[in-house]
Amino acid sequence: MTYCLAVKLNSGIVFASDSRTSAGVDQISSYSKMNTFRVPRERLFVLLSAGNLATTQAVVNLIRRDLDDPDAHTSLKVVDYMFDAALYVGQISSRVQERHRGPEHNGKTNLEATFILGGQIQGQPHDIYLIYPEGNYISASAAKPYLQIGETKYGKPILDRVLTSETRLEDAARCALVSLDSTSRSNLTVGPPFELGVYEKDQFELTRHMELSEDSPFYISVRDSWIETVQRGFEALPRFDWE
Amino acid sequence: MTYCLAVKLNSGIVFASDSRTSAGVDQISSYSKMNTFRVPRERLFVLLSAGNLATTQAVVNLIRRDLDDPDAHTSLKVVDYMFDAALYVGQISSRVQERHRGPEHNGKTNLEATFILGGQIQGQPHDIYLIYPEGNYISASAAKPYLQIGETKYGKPILDRVLTSETRLEDAARCALVSLDSTSRSNLTVGPPFELGVYEKDQFELTRHMELSEDSPFYISVRDSWIETVQRGFEALPRFDWE
Repeated sequence: MTYCLAVKLNSGIVFASDSRTSAGVDQISSYSKMNTFRVPRERLFVLLSAGNLATTQAVVNLIRRDLDDPDAHTSLKVVDYMFDAALYVGQISSRVQERHRGPEHNGKTNLEATFILGGQIQGQPHDIYLIYPEGNYISASAAKPYLQIGETKYGKPILDRVLTSETRLEDAARCALVSLDSTSRSNLTVGPPFELGVYEKDQFELTRHMELSEDSPFYISVRDSWIETVQRGFEALPRFDWE
Repeated sequence: MTYCLAVKLNSGIVFASDSRTSAGVDQISSYSKMNTFRVPRERLFVLLSAGNLATTQAVVNLIRRDLDDPDAHTSLKVVDYMFDAALYVGQISSRVQERHRGPEHNGKTNLEATFILGGQIQGQPHDIYLIYPEGNYISASAAKPYLQIGETKYGKPILDRVLTSETRLEDAARCALVSLDSTSRSNLTVGPPFELGVYEKDQFELTRHMELSEDSPFYISVRDSWIETVQRGFEALPRFDWE
């Protein structure tokens, strides 16, 4: 399993993902689930992925091939809108899944993949989209400025309590990190290293990118600070009238 | 959907449940999901339920009928161990589901129900069991002293960060309330009124039972205190080195 999220803020976008891939009980590996595609000073796209690893890797490879191909009919270099980019990624993803669902497919392996695509095309606002295995997509809303894929439930309450469109980029990044940490504590299939990407609007490159391993001092300090917050918070809760 | 949990502590058991029942988009109703069965000064059982409302109500009715029947072959009055009680409830539950899965069943309605049974039989330790739709059961462990049914993921991180077997009954009850509140904030199918039951071991009756509606002053004060904790906690998180 996987847990990725993106937060759309007035000032930019925060991306966060874990790196644990479990392709079976014996195999717990680590793969980056955050891929960046750039056209310098013009376009930036960040793709977060969850689901079948073969599908997500094929999708990333095909996006790169189209980007490198000056004659490509469509690519992240030529799409006009962010939602066109989402549709383009969705179409690649459905095509890849379909190709491997042929007669040799055992019918058991789930080939589906889900993506979050975020970024900005010059002259247009930055945006984030969630792309379903079927290839269709949704955007975030002002009331709920984030999108999640994978093991989404454990880390949701903290986002609902903290995030608004006005949240500062760094605060949203810390919130995303706590959300990842809470999830990994409650679910073994999500784990560090965690990746954080911060995109400041109109910059057309990732302003900040960091990988936080289990023993990264920053991750440890955030985690310990949050544990202390929760424990002190509990002690401060009002008493029942019989206590 | 539903969210119920029970926490097994050295000093007793805490039970918590929401009361929202959604049997369709038009119908959001409120039903208690916490049922108590007693044999005064001898036995106490609390049953929390999630799943098909017709199934759970039938199970509760059959348990009561057996309790009232002095000739019942087996009932909560005569089982020897807590795990026998769990097996007994599981058998009733499978029987009820099977009865309604006859030829007139449309094959679409999910008739399954899941239960948590907790309590104590005199001379034996108090315990909690999770009973699956198939009728089998598991107990909690010392490392993870709680069991959840229904919409369990949203409210799990807070339990993992706070609860141990040594936690005081009232602290565990507050933790359960925050877990319910977090869940209802992130998921519309879980909502107040919430029920809290506190069982102090060897008492053979629920020591405390309260129903907390949306505008109950105690619930509001716990909720607001927790919101403040989370928001202050965020402000106190360590800064990135570039800030």
